[in-house]
Amino acid sequence: MMLHPAGSIAVIFCAKRTTIDEAGYQEAAAKMSALAKLQPGYLGEDHARTENGLGITISYWKDDSSAKAWRDQPDHAATREKGRDKWYEFYTLHVARVERSYDWQK
Amino acid sequence: MMLHPAGSIAVIFCAKRTTIDEAGYQEAAAKMSALAKLQPGYLGEDHARTENGLGITISYWKDDSSAKAWRDQPDHAATREKGRDKWYEFYTLHVARVERSYDWQK
Repeated sequence: MMLHPAGSIAVIFCAKRTTIDEAGYQEAAAKMSALAKLQPGYLGEDHARTENGLGITISYWKDDSSAKAWRDQPDHAATREKGRDKWYEFYTLHVARVERSYDWQK
Repeated sequence: MMLHPAGSIAVIFCAKRTTIDEAGYQEAAAKMSALAKLQPGYLGEDHARTENGLGITISYWKDDSSAKAWRDQPDHAATREKGRDKWYEFYTLHVARVERSYDWQK
């Protein structure tokens, strides 16, 4: 949860989970989150998940080419296939370019 | 949870709640969500909230001027002030322009 520069890319992933294989999902999600951090151009991630509801993960990238490289990263692509097979009912993905950012702290 | 056209605006609001006034927060959040739907240019909303953790609300707008009009809507502005006073420890807000969208369903 931090500011990101104008021109950076936000990949907004909103997904409804199936009710099966919570342990497998959690393990894969942790692995992907750790792997994403190692990719060139990775800026950060925000994640929230309503119990029995929607999960949102936003990953932030320096530019579109680093976001696309992560999309095509082989372990990530294989995990996405598993996600379609087991973990997700449906999802949407929006790729958006950050124009301005603000933060506030009490 | 739906696709939005290229050029539309995603307002990504990530917030850490305080531990007080859950009822007041829930009431205001429902009211703001209903009010947002009535604004010109409103396209949709995605929301998730991890218990005792981060909440993410993404509202989608036809263009930047409709997103800014919502920011300046008087009831919304007043509720934001209340949020700073009572409900939020800290938050970030990213305004981003959608470049492409995908969805998938089992």
